[in-house]
Amino acid sequence: MNTLARADFPVLRPQQTRWSDNDVYGHVNNAAYYLWFDSTVNGWLMDTTGVDIRMLPAIGVVVETSCRFVHEVTFPDRLDIGLALEHRGRTSVRYRLGVFRDDLLCAHGQFVHVYVDPATRRPTQIPDLIGKALDTLA
Amino acid sequence: MNTLARADFPVLRPQQTRWSDNDVYGHVNNAAYYLWFDSTVNGWLMDTTGVDIRMLPAIGVVVETSCRFVHEVTFPDRLDIGLALEHRGRTSVRYRLGVFRDDLLCAHGQFVHVYVDPATRRPTQIPDLIGKALDTLA
Amino acid sequence: MNTLARADFPVLRPQQTRWSDNDVYGHVNNAAYYLWFDSTVNGWLMDTTGVDIRMLPAIGVVVETSCRFVHEVTFPDRLDIGLALEHRGRTSVRYRLGVFRDDLLCAHGQFVHVYVDPATRRPTQIPDLIGKALDTLA
Amino acid sequence: MNTLARADFPVLRPQQTRWSDNDVYGHVNNAAYYLWFDSTVNGWLMDTTGVDIRMLPAIGVVVETSCRFVHEVTFPDRLDIGLALEHRGRTSVRYRLGVFRDDLLCAHGQFVHVYVDPATRRPTQIPDLIGKALDTLA
Repeated sequence: MNTLARADFPVLRPQQTRWSDNDVYGHVNNAAYYLWFDSTVNGWLMDTTGVDIRMLPAIGVVVETSCRFVHEVTFPDRLDIGLALEHRGRTSVRYRLGVFRDDLLCAHGQFVHVYVDPATRRPTQIPDLIGKALDTLA
Repeated sequence: MNTLARADFPVLRPQQTRWSDNDVYGHVNNAAYYLWFDSTVNGWLMDTTGVDIRMLPAIGVVVETSCRFVHEVTFPDRLDIGLALEHRGRTSVRYRLGVFRDDLLCAHGQFVHVYVDPATRRPTQIPDLIGKALDTLA
Repeated sequence: MNTLARADFPVLRPQQTRWSDNDVYGHVNNAAYYLWFDSTVNGWLMDTTGVDIRMLPAIGVVVETSCRFVHEVTFPDRLDIGLALEHRGRTSVRYRLGVFRDDLLCAHGQFVHVYVDPATRRPTQIPDLIGKALDTLA
Repeated sequence: MNTLARADFPVLRPQQTRWSDNDVYGHVNNAAYYLWFDSTVNGWLMDTTGVDIRMLPAIGVVVETSCRFVHEVTFPDRLDIGLALEHRGRTSVRYRLGVFRDDLLCAHGQFVHVYVDPATRRPTQIPDLIGKALDTLA
């Protein structure tokens, strides 16, 4: 997995580190990467669908995330977060994410959305607009 | 794994949610769980060793984390974060973590520290004081 | 103002620091205090009114905050956040906040809510339930 | 003060909002602005001095911050954070900050650094390299 390169990600979105992302050891805290994953998935979905995904009939609830940290990043760094489709089901989507500083893979992870009805919170089919966005990742 | 109970964790530490942990859907954002994992592992290490772990000859660098989200939590909630030893190597420690609201398992995850020399950032043996703390988890 | 004491705050609510609150200098980042202010005001409002304030006919939008940092705090620390009423208008409330480690005042600040209609975002009268909660602070 | 414009800030630095910056009401939480202030002041200092300011003989400790919120921002938004010198003393610097979405002033605030000796935490003269950076703001 450590051999992932920028070309393995059809989408790359810029992300800045923040002063507060750094912890006491002077490198970015592990939780900050998940903030970037979140912003990358949701930002890409909003840009690609052209709608506020919070207003769709089903909302994506995060049921699983993971990350492996390969090279430390710090503040200030300009990163690119890679986004790829790992698996697509009827009600869920598994994304692969990569954190790059230039061509260096600094971290990689997974992020799983299950679509649920906002009221009942029961799993439901991926909304059409989201599905069309996912088509562009395949 | 969803059958983890409080009794599976030798250590349980309280954790409050914060208003800002909630995202736009009214439940806690996935990244917040990693902030609790961090605080639980490091807080327990500091309390158990009785020293500021940031001053030890080797520091614990996070190389991998993961979390599965089973039941949503919100603000305000009072949680207990369970901590258990999953695996202990010569230079690394893998912890298992559980997020409980009362007896309900809301999330569970893994957190891996590799000990490194603060200057060279090369892996090095787990410091004795940390090792003694880990003994109490076994 | 540095002479504020615990007795100057009719409400004191516990708050834990988190590992990630610390910045690279080993003390808590200034933005973290605002997370505690937020959690204190909103948590107290929810506990005192007994309702989810997000469901009220008017929502409190933060229009101004400020903080002076007197003594550094760190992780792990157990703090008490003091809450007092500084000024109450027809559509807005100004709170005074204090951060205490035991009896030591570590920081103090202000936090202003304006109540607005959730749809139009125009200022509107403080909801009755909030008003009754504020009565208990006077 | 609401009439502050981009031209009132000699430095403007880009800042992205994050998904997690949004709170339950769908706009950015007040504490996030302080994360941007922090990143703007420290990022500009590091870029302008060309050194890692954490390694200087004196470190800047934040003793006061404040912010007024004029127009809501959300995720995803691309902002520019304006930085100007409000006052410069022997041991302290007061910055003025502005948050802009295009030409719209969304928030403005103040941020005060006192320089201290890292060991004793006593106020000390602003380091020369920082002073030279501040000259460029005047």
